[in-house]
Amino acid sequence: MPAGLLDEIPLTKLGSAYEVVPGLKEDMPMREKMEILLKFYQKQIVAAVENADSSGQKFIVDEWSRGENMGGGITRVFQDGKVFEKGGVNFSAIHGELPAAAVERMRANHKELKVPKSGKLPFYACGLSLVIHPRHYLAPSVHLNYRYFETLNEDGTTQAWWFGGGQDLSPMYYDEHDAIHFHKLLKDFCDYHDPAYYPKFKKWADDYFFIKFRGEARGIGGIFFDDLNDKDPDLIFKFAADGLSRFLPSYLPAVRRAYEPSTQPRPTPEEGWHWQGLRRGRYAEFNLAVDRGTQFGLQTPGSRVESILMTLPLHCSWEYNYHPVPGSLEAKTVEVLKNPREYV
Amino acid sequence: MPAGLLDEIPLTKLGSAYEVVPGLKEDMPMREKMEILLKFYQKQIVAAVENADSSGQKFIVDEWSRGENMGGGITRVFQDGKVFEKGGVNFSAIHGELPAAAVERMRANHKELKVPKSGKLPFYACGLSLVIHPRHYLAPSVHLNYRYFETLNEDGTTQAWWFGGGQDLSPMYYDEHDAIHFHKLLKDFCDYHDPAYYPKFKKWADDYFFIKFRGEARGIGGIFFDDLNDKDPDLIFKFAADGLSRFLPSYLPAVRRAYEPSTQPRPTPEEGWHWQGLRRGRYAEFNLAVDRGTQFGLQTPGSRVESILMTLPLHCSWEYNYHPVPGSLEAKTVEVLKNPREYV
Repeated sequence: MPAGLLDEIPLTKLGSAYEVVPGLKEDMPMREKMEILLKFYQKQIVAAVENADSSGQKFIVDEWSRGENMGGGITRVFQDGKVFEKGGVNFSAIHGELPAAAVERMRANHKELKVPKSGKLPFYACGLSLVIHPRHYLAPSVHLNYRYFETLNEDGTTQAWWFGGGQDLSPMYYDEHDAIHFHKLLKDFCDYHDPAYYPKFKKWADDYFFIKFRGEARGIGGIFFDDLNDKDPDLIFKFAADGLSRFLPSYLPAVRRAYEPSTQPRPTPEEGWHWQGLRRGRYAEFNLAVDRGTQFGLQTPGSRVESILMTLPLHCSWEYNYHPVPGSLEAKTVEVLKNPREYV
Repeated sequence: MPAGLLDEIPLTKLGSAYEVVPGLKEDMPMREKMEILLKFYQKQIVAAVENADSSGQKFIVDEWSRGENMGGGITRVFQDGKVFEKGGVNFSAIHGELPAAAVERMRANHKELKVPKSGKLPFYACGLSLVIHPRHYLAPSVHLNYRYFETLNEDGTTQAWWFGGGQDLSPMYYDEHDAIHFHKLLKDFCDYHDPAYYPKFKKWADDYFFIKFRGEARGIGGIFFDDLNDKDPDLIFKFAADGLSRFLPSYLPAVRRAYEPSTQPRPTPEEGWHWQGLRRGRYAEFNLAVDRGTQFGLQTPGSRVESILMTLPLHCSWEYNYHPVPGSLEAKTVEVLKNPREYV
């Protein structure tokens, strides 16, 4: 057991963002609050992953800019560690003008948008986007994304705004204990803010992370939401802050368990590594061929491709028409992926 | 040197499809001629790849059907051989009705299409689609696709028709000799049919196989064409037949050369395998995130996903922000991929 994995991951009190995150004040503009929040959790998660990796290896830091007055970001990537094979934690805060076609697509969910005569709409967006692929085949991959979006009036003031985000788990081998723990922490923080959130956002994740042409989900889901602006913005901000605070405690225990003895049946290392390669291929398949966020990013001129594709696993495989042996641990996992469940 | 790779690959006479392909007769309906032609080359290529592999390993055969009266295909896949790591040679011949949205997209290039009142247009399509990934990092991957498409009147007769196809080479390490040999054979058979073809179709391949967000091509190109119906259909049929006949002689010598001594600088095996993994990741990236054919296939209800994705390499890797050492063989290859050249 890598020593750092044994460290306790404390749960902060729900709704306590202003006490937990240094420098955060209620009367700041939302853009500033979100940037402080996202950068705080980027640092916290990076430190915890380095600590859990127990190898002394550090994240690479790449600060990048889209050009003058267009914003940029801080990409942090971890590669080839002891516990973690690849991980990326990417903060970005960008400004610019949405082209007419993008505005049209956005108006489908935001009828309130007023578009200037030029057809181009000024916007601001910030987000924290994270993917971790651990080395051990018994440890799940995980993804998190929290973002805040504004469209702007010609004088730079906010016109419309919304939040989006969520987090989801992708085990190579289904483990009920991990799945319940992950979903329970998500349900708890969602319920604290709105009892309607977890059922709605859990289903949204099940739908969003589904690979239609395979008839199977990327993983065991979590929560996903977008266009959220039906409450006072500060209430949604505190909801997002709690989601970020639940990331480490919902995830790291599942990595630790990969190194702990178990009474459950487990694959041989040979089976495990082979299956991990195939599941990673499936992960890349989702991100490259299905994920609307990735496609939007890749098609946006001036986007930073390496920051978008840091989510891809280090090693993937594709075998023709591979089907696990019926009754095997691999087949049981596929069964769960084909039929999303309720965990809490 | 695997013994089978030494076997001579003869060049047949151009324009000689009716002499070369058993059972082919000029007065047959085009659908029948194309199916005979494509199945003949599927068999020939499968036999030649098995022979070159020199291991006794055979292609898997999967015959599949889309359902009653909707056609189907024969997928042949080779995996984990001595010379070839993965290869797929897929024949299909399908019928059905194009949904209204697909008809609209198609009308952009085919104003002549008459759409029945239902909005759905009956169609017939057949094709041979092929990808080979050899094991050796000095041996290039290759892709070929020839297809024939018809839209039908309500009585089943042909309304409009066109051909599409091409072939292109994706080396991990740029080799000028291989590139010139490959392009020369393509130019020769194109010129025999129409001197305008090679320049036009070579550029089309350079454009089609370009990964815009990377600013680099998937490989060193070849030819690509679509919607070709500007001549008597039998002339285009003979052109497609010659393209298919040039596949083995244009490709196998490049695989053989990977096993031959060379006076040129070569990577160490460690460098070679590492770079091959990254280039294969790039190949998967193109197929999953860029290729319109793959996306169309995956979005078509009832399509056979495993036949479409047989093109993906067995092993791929993605490293964050990897750039080859300036002046290295890897960097020279990227230089060529970023700046498509003229070879003949």
